[in-house]
Amino acid sequence: MTATVGAGTMRALAKTHAGPGAELIERPTPTPGPGEVLLRVEAASICGTDLHLFTWDDWAAENLVPPRILGHELAGTVVGTGSGVTRVAEGDLVGVESHLVDWTCSQCRRGDMHLCRNLRVIGVHIDGGFAEHIVIPETNAIESNGLDPAVVALQEPMGNAVHAAFVEDIAGRSVLVTGCGPIGLCAVGIAKAAGAALVIATDTESYRLELARTMGADLALNASTHGTSQQVLDATGGDGVDVVLEMSGAPGALSAGLRLATRGGRVSLLGIFGEDVHVDLSELVIMKGLRIHGVYGRRIYDTWERTQSLLRGGLDVSPIITHRLDLTEWPTAFDLIASRHAGKVVLLP
Amino acid sequence: MTATVGAGTMRALAKTHAGPGAELIERPTPTPGPGEVLLRVEAASICGTDLHLFTWDDWAAENLVPPRILGHELAGTVVGTGSGVTRVAEGDLVGVESHLVDWTCSQCRRGDMHLCRNLRVIGVHIDGGFAEHIVIPETNAIESNGLDPAVVALQEPMGNAVHAAFVEDIAGRSVLVTGCGPIGLCAVGIAKAAGAALVIATDTESYRLELARTMGADLALNASTHGTSQQVLDATGGDGVDVVLEMSGAPGALSAGLRLATRGGRVSLLGIFGEDVHVDLSELVIMKGLRIHGVYGRRIYDTWERTQSLLRGGLDVSPIITHRLDLTEWPTAFDLIASRHAGKVVLLP
Amino acid sequence: MTATVGAGTMRALAKTHAGPGAELIERPTPTPGPGEVLLRVEAASICGTDLHLFTWDDWAAENLVPPRILGHELAGTVVGTGSGVTRVAEGDLVGVESHLVDWTCSQCRRGDMHLCRNLRVIGVHIDGGFAEHIVIPETNAIESNGLDPAVVALQEPMGNAVHAAFVEDIAGRSVLVTGCGPIGLCAVGIAKAAGAALVIATDTESYRLELARTMGADLALNASTHGTSQQVLDATGGDGVDVVLEMSGAPGALSAGLRLATRGGRVSLLGIFGEDVHVDLSELVIMKGLRIHGVYGRRIYDTWERTQSLLRGGLDVSPIITHRLDLTEWPTAFDLIASRHAGKVVLLP
Amino acid sequence: MTATVGAGTMRALAKTHAGPGAELIERPTPTPGPGEVLLRVEAASICGTDLHLFTWDDWAAENLVPPRILGHELAGTVVGTGSGVTRVAEGDLVGVESHLVDWTCSQCRRGDMHLCRNLRVIGVHIDGGFAEHIVIPETNAIESNGLDPAVVALQEPMGNAVHAAFVEDIAGRSVLVTGCGPIGLCAVGIAKAAGAALVIATDTESYRLELARTMGADLALNASTHGTSQQVLDATGGDGVDVVLEMSGAPGALSAGLRLATRGGRVSLLGIFGEDVHVDLSELVIMKGLRIHGVYGRRIYDTWERTQSLLRGGLDVSPIITHRLDLTEWPTAFDLIASRHAGKVVLLP
Repeated sequence: MTATVGAGTMRALAKTHAGPGAELIERPTPTPGPGEVLLRVEAASICGTDLHLFTWDDWAAENLVPPRILGHELAGTVVGTGSGVTRVAEGDLVGVESHLVDWTCSQCRRGDMHLCRNLRVIGVHIDGGFAEHIVIPETNAIESNGLDPAVVALQEPMGNAVHAAFVEDIAGRSVLVTGCGPIGLCAVGIAKAAGAALVIATDTESYRLELARTMGADLALNASTHGTSQQVLDATGGDGVDVVLEMSGAPGALSAGLRLATRGGRVSLLGIFGEDVHVDLSELVIMKGLRIHGVYGRRIYDTWERTQSLLRGGLDVSPIITHRLDLTEWPTAFDLIASRHAGKVVLLP
Repeated sequence: MTATVGAGTMRALAKTHAGPGAELIERPTPTPGPGEVLLRVEAASICGTDLHLFTWDDWAAENLVPPRILGHELAGTVVGTGSGVTRVAEGDLVGVESHLVDWTCSQCRRGDMHLCRNLRVIGVHIDGGFAEHIVIPETNAIESNGLDPAVVALQEPMGNAVHAAFVEDIAGRSVLVTGCGPIGLCAVGIAKAAGAALVIATDTESYRLELARTMGADLALNASTHGTSQQVLDATGGDGVDVVLEMSGAPGALSAGLRLATRGGRVSLLGIFGEDVHVDLSELVIMKGLRIHGVYGRRIYDTWERTQSLLRGGLDVSPIITHRLDLTEWPTAFDLIASRHAGKVVLLP
Repeated sequence: MTATVGAGTMRALAKTHAGPGAELIERPTPTPGPGEVLLRVEAASICGTDLHLFTWDDWAAENLVPPRILGHELAGTVVGTGSGVTRVAEGDLVGVESHLVDWTCSQCRRGDMHLCRNLRVIGVHIDGGFAEHIVIPETNAIESNGLDPAVVALQEPMGNAVHAAFVEDIAGRSVLVTGCGPIGLCAVGIAKAAGAALVIATDTESYRLELARTMGADLALNASTHGTSQQVLDATGGDGVDVVLEMSGAPGALSAGLRLATRGGRVSLLGIFGEDVHVDLSELVIMKGLRIHGVYGRRIYDTWERTQSLLRGGLDVSPIITHRLDLTEWPTAFDLIASRHAGKVVLLP
Repeated sequence: MTATVGAGTMRALAKTHAGPGAELIERPTPTPGPGEVLLRVEAASICGTDLHLFTWDDWAAENLVPPRILGHELAGTVVGTGSGVTRVAEGDLVGVESHLVDWTCSQCRRGDMHLCRNLRVIGVHIDGGFAEHIVIPETNAIESNGLDPAVVALQEPMGNAVHAAFVEDIAGRSVLVTGCGPIGLCAVGIAKAAGAALVIATDTESYRLELARTMGADLALNASTHGTSQQVLDATGGDGVDVVLEMSGAPGALSAGLRLATRGGRVSLLGIFGEDVHVDLSELVIMKGLRIHGVYGRRIYDTWERTQSLLRGGLDVSPIITHRLDLTEWPTAFDLIASRHAGKVVLLP
């Protein structure tokens, strides 16, 4: 916090070698190439993925080649532009789409850029945002002037929730959100803002359930308590919910969600399961005529547009941001995430 | 108001002969047949269609055979049931789907009951709700316990607005509502409740624009003022709106709506035009890639479910109900409607 | 087997007691009540479900209360009508929607009658069509004049395939059909008729693969052979298929289907799995952004309309009907189904 | 016309000055810049738009600044590539998306590139394909190896028809195609290939109706004959058609189409009307609950993919190509188009 960083260099939180842990290092400030912009990072928040990278699980080992600066949820001010940059200008505050896509594969050409066959992720495959500066392609900079930088950074995970919530209509529907991490909490707020008739949230942590109530959940139920499913049925006149937004990655939550979905309902799956899941597909999916949507990332750029519209329309996601810490306090930040007694933790480089 | 109605009879506002006008008459209270329910009418509101029937225009002359009790927007308490009635019970407060459908034509069999080839309308083809009692098929009685009877009656026109608003998604979209009669006013409230990013309303009456503001319009603009279109463009960053809900039946409003819709946007047409409309289809619809939805009635029963969900979720449509009058005050009520200085006018039989 | 059946009685294949087996019995010919029609059965085909009932597995024991005449895929000529029957007339050849629905639950009121909360099935919960006569509600009789009765009966399982194929668009898409039982074979023909760009079928029986080729499969591959998945990838330029129609109920086929679906593709699940399935939801569904549709039954009546349109438009499903046997030959018929060396087996009462 | 063109130059059909007419000129062969490809034109077909440019109507005068080489439907072999070109290679046969888009406006960012706010058209705003060579951005070159070059060129207008036909599902639906110019003829073939139950085509020229029959129309009716509408109703059991594809730009055809669409049906508008159209929106669109889709261009790139899939799946559009002429025979070609006694006329440079 105190040390002066040398001219032309910057502080950054990086994975410096294969294995657990991370390190605060000093690096040369990068320079934007053609079509790229240099950002001064204003806020960068920690994602569950960052924790996986930190603890170095199998997925991390397969995907990240050190050294690599971490961080893919961020807000920055444009402080430099490469040739050919036209859409954003110096001084603009921008959010960052965290996926780099090839624009030319079958998926990109169909408009499913978020499912690009050659996806690369900022903070995993190229240097990320837990740093004072970052260079990104202009295509990934999303104009966000006028918003709080921490909220700008939050747009990335919030976009996941918007994508999951809006794959089918939600106004006038009853909704169950399973899992109240930051994305689940966003989903609660989004569903309420989009006219859901009833929003029920479940989690196993009372800390998170309280945040769900703050975000507008009509009911926030502890999934580890006996009788939770019956409460959901009672609240829906015995029918079950029209919409399930699975945000936990917990097999039990999935199973409950499938059981509690009304016949003909829909389920968005966003939480990542650590292993194969056993599902009674016949009884719970086929015979009930459910539609299941695998949700990854966010539509580029339609989700961003709708996310910003919700924010500008008055949806307040600031209660989800429970902690703001200096970049140097990163160990505390990671501990908070691991404790599950935090909403979104934001680092300020 | 004062006269006691004879036992077994009831007061009713009816069209007694072909031609302008209506008459308050006494009639035997009807008896429910198999599958039918007898309602004590708690509230019945006046629709623009009723004004057409009153003034006896060509459409009225073609469709209504006197004598006929008027009124198709109503709330009633079940006070009698015919054989085979199982879903509703005496004492239930119900709203009324105003269309009688045959359930067997191609349209009904596809689930488009609101577009039935043999549609009949309560208060036009069978006796209506401007009366102390009415008999309707049980299929048309929609459970509405716990709501204000005037709001229960309002569900019928509100359902039109829900249907128009929700034919495509609306959350996070910018919306222009042209025409602030009761259905337009409902549309403003519905769009806001469903997470529209921006709701702009236009009308030529400042009385109605004030109601639009009360219902949550971000902008309420007088369509007869110079520069209104520019204000809409300015409010949308020059893009125009994603969604147009045409609720006026005014050719000028349609034309403005088509011009102000963004390329690739959608337009719901609900207001009835008095005659053929001249449209620049090539420039405004084809080259802009617009989608136009003709909206009639409301989906049976999905729209009802979503309408009630919005009401139960907290959408307050009571400001739209500007006048409540005794049935005997019907001449005042019709004058109010004709003056365009009223929202919804409710008769209390 | 040649014996004359007494006047007013009929032959029928029934489950007479809880446990394995079935019996050819004589029963009084039923009489249609109000809203019902009496059919002379012209053809009745055997479904995999009938085999489950015959062998008396857990599902059978939970659902069927003997005595019960089996059979739910059938064609009949109207030979009697109860009061209130208006849509069909004596002499009409009709197919039969096998599900009896309550028309009033939340699902029915949304138009999802096939997912009715109180579904009952002909041949399981009421007497079925392996008989000389049957009584059904008029609502379940689907006009099919001009078609071969065996094809009329086949419309029921074919409707499952139409429903599965058409939940999203299929024209110009590449399609993998896993499982070439009668429904899978219908799916192959339907996909080709609906303009699929490429239709690949897999099964483990060469008998069925040959039928798939007859129905128009561009490729028919033995799923138990090494390298099948690579062949599918090669045929799609490495992308995988846009559409998977899972018709086998085999966990291995599901897993292969999910792997072979292109990112952003869709999967219809129709085959019933005998037990819980282990699925890598994270890798195969969420990260690939797949949409999974549980498909049960067929939309009433939209699927019927589209099924008949395809038949009238020239789709020839007759190759799927490999055997036609007298009702008295039912033991042979059930053996054929169990052998998996048959397409659809039709009984002629 | 046989004269050898000088080295480094090429023949081209161009508009050399504001006003009617065109001229065969000699021009330097262009050189591809970064991201661009040089094509040797193998086939270039004439669109109705080219006739408007030739005769120099108001639209032409507003949009084209001479000198300009005409032609936007073309097939070419890649014979040169600028820097950064990676997707196509020398020797590839490619079709050409005729619209240049900015990739960054609101519409492009939503995936509606075909509705780009800054659209430019090859052969109107930049030099076109009625020439021996052309330079286009690589993004506009669509790999089409293995197809007949004339069919490759035809993919451009055929894509319009695919886009119009597939905005909603068409399999098992009844379809009316009004207008049998080349795009209408493509629509007939596409609808049949995609499993439409019934395809009816109308036009006022028997020459074109004969081509419609060749393309598979179940009925091809002369719109100027008395009783045509009744024939359409008779063919659809009195219901009218599910789908109208308006390809004529004739107000009478639109009016007939709207009348003949079944309640709840959909109408794709593609034919350009010369002036404002009078429409009975109330009776024909609103009360019938129709959906109208304005269709411009084709989705980039999804429509291309589906177009090629249909061609590779066996749809034969070659009967639509009625004339192939040398580029020097352009006056004959334009006369043929104007005569309406031609399908698609292809120029071979």
